[in-house]
Amino acid sequence: LRNRCGVPQKNLSACDINNAVLDMARKSGLITKGWSFDEAGIMLADCDLVFLCILPAAMHNFLEKWETAFKPGALITDIAGVKKSIAAHAEKIREDIDFIPGHPMAGFEKGGFINASFVNFTGKNYILCPLARNKPENLQFIKELILRMDFGRITETSAACHDEKIAYTSQLCHVIAASLIECESDTSIARFGGGSFEDFTRIAMLNAPMWAELFVSNRDVLLEKINRFEKSVDVIKNLVLEGNISDLEQILVRVRDRRLNMSDYCKTESGG
Amino acid sequence: LRNRCGVPQKNLSACDINNAVLDMARKSGLITKGWSFDEAGIMLADCDLVFLCILPAAMHNFLEKWETAFKPGALITDIAGVKKSIAAHAEKIREDIDFIPGHPMAGFEKGGFINASFVNFTGKNYILCPLARNKPENLQFIKELILRMDFGRITETSAACHDEKIAYTSQLCHVIAASLIECESDTSIARFGGGSFEDFTRIAMLNAPMWAELFVSNRDVLLEKINRFEKSVDVIKNLVLEGNISDLEQILVRVRDRRLNMSDYCKTESGG
Repeated sequence: LRNRCGVPQKNLSACDINNAVLDMARKSGLITKGWSFDEAGIMLADCDLVFLCILPAAMHNFLEKWETAFKPGALITDIAGVKKSIAAHAEKIREDIDFIPGHPMAGFEKGGFINASFVNFTGKNYILCPLARNKPENLQFIKELILRMDFGRITETSAACHDEKIAYTSQLCHVIAASLIECESDTSIARFGGGSFEDFTRIAMLNAPMWAELFVSNRDVLLEKINRFEKSVDVIKNLVLEGNISDLEQILVRVRDRRLNMSDYCKTESGG
Repeated sequence: LRNRCGVPQKNLSACDINNAVLDMARKSGLITKGWSFDEAGIMLADCDLVFLCILPAAMHNFLEKWETAFKPGALITDIAGVKKSIAAHAEKIREDIDFIPGHPMAGFEKGGFINASFVNFTGKNYILCPLARNKPENLQFIKELILRMDFGRITETSAACHDEKIAYTSQLCHVIAASLIECESDTSIARFGGGSFEDFTRIAMLNAPMWAELFVSNRDVLLEKINRFEKSVDVIKNLVLEGNISDLEQILVRVRDRRLNMSDYCKTESGG
């Protein structure tokens, strides 16, 4: 596994619930030392920069348990897929530590350390939700680190705005992918796939506990997005039912033009 | 543009409504001669193999107009996205010509001759819907040609089965992609994309007249698929509304397992 920042790593520690994974990471040369969750306090006392990579509910528990353990002056960030509750917690944290909430928009449908090298950061989006209390030099440091990891674009926004946008671009897509697989039990149907089906359902191989928690943590916004999506499906469905080719065509032209306009923002666009 | 079959092309003709495109194709060396639609009869009289690449309704008109023009013994195939009406027409065609309906499951969101080289056939699915009247040697010839074009798998099935499966793997995905773009007017939202959004909506840059016609041609099956999909979305939506994380997780685990089982059939699967 390569060190994605390209910087010499003299003292990179990791804390995990699985000791076997820590061993693997240590033997691969990625980390210098692994710590069990019980030892998190010892590790944190020595860390200038901390990436919290745990689910939101567990992160709140972790921060409550270990808040006093962080090194004075430490810079903390996280990668959780919802940001409102995280930012609220970060606002109230010890004054001598600085927590900048973040969300790298890059994932892989198979989780775990052994699949980590398949995650591609190149050109991807990274969202930061800085707080008024964050130190400018820390924000600058995090942004440089993100670009060194090869992300393509950093967007700074509020936690509320993040949760609203992400409900559409990420959570709704996962709801759709899951629904698409849920409504068809014949697994050999992929013989009839032409690419879009495989693309649509790849994210259905999701981390179930994580997404169940994320969906519910962002309930109100997600429900609004699902409702709006369902209304659009119904409009198209009714035109198909009526056999109204000309109105269907009008919608599809509008949709194509809108998506073409979005392409400027789609850094990961493939093809010609 | 490369010749995808890898065979020497001594006499490849094309007929198109756009003379400028025919000129381009001739100058590129892909075709030896271009014909206008009015001249289709002269061209057809000389063709041993014909690929019909026109929308279903136009294809029926074309076949009615030019049926007498085909060379005796000619082998005909097509690439339309619906097959029932095409197969019905192929059943009734002149006895001395042989029409094998087909559907290459490979496309590109941008159409036209100038984008043709971006279409990737490698490893993709190709569906054939042979008729009882088709000659075995012609079927064998078409299958060899398809494999030479680098397609990965040929599935032979009935036209009715094709239309039923494709309503799910292809048409429903296009309805979803269009609905997803239709329900959000902010084009800058793609800044918050994490890959799945871009993948989901790439096919929203579709050929509007073609898809409007295909949706309506396969109306009954497509409506049934949309209804089943909407029911699955509602199940997930209601669990989110209830905040029922454990039932949500149960569905998402089932979905993940089912999609993993589909992977054997997803030849185009990327990643590790």
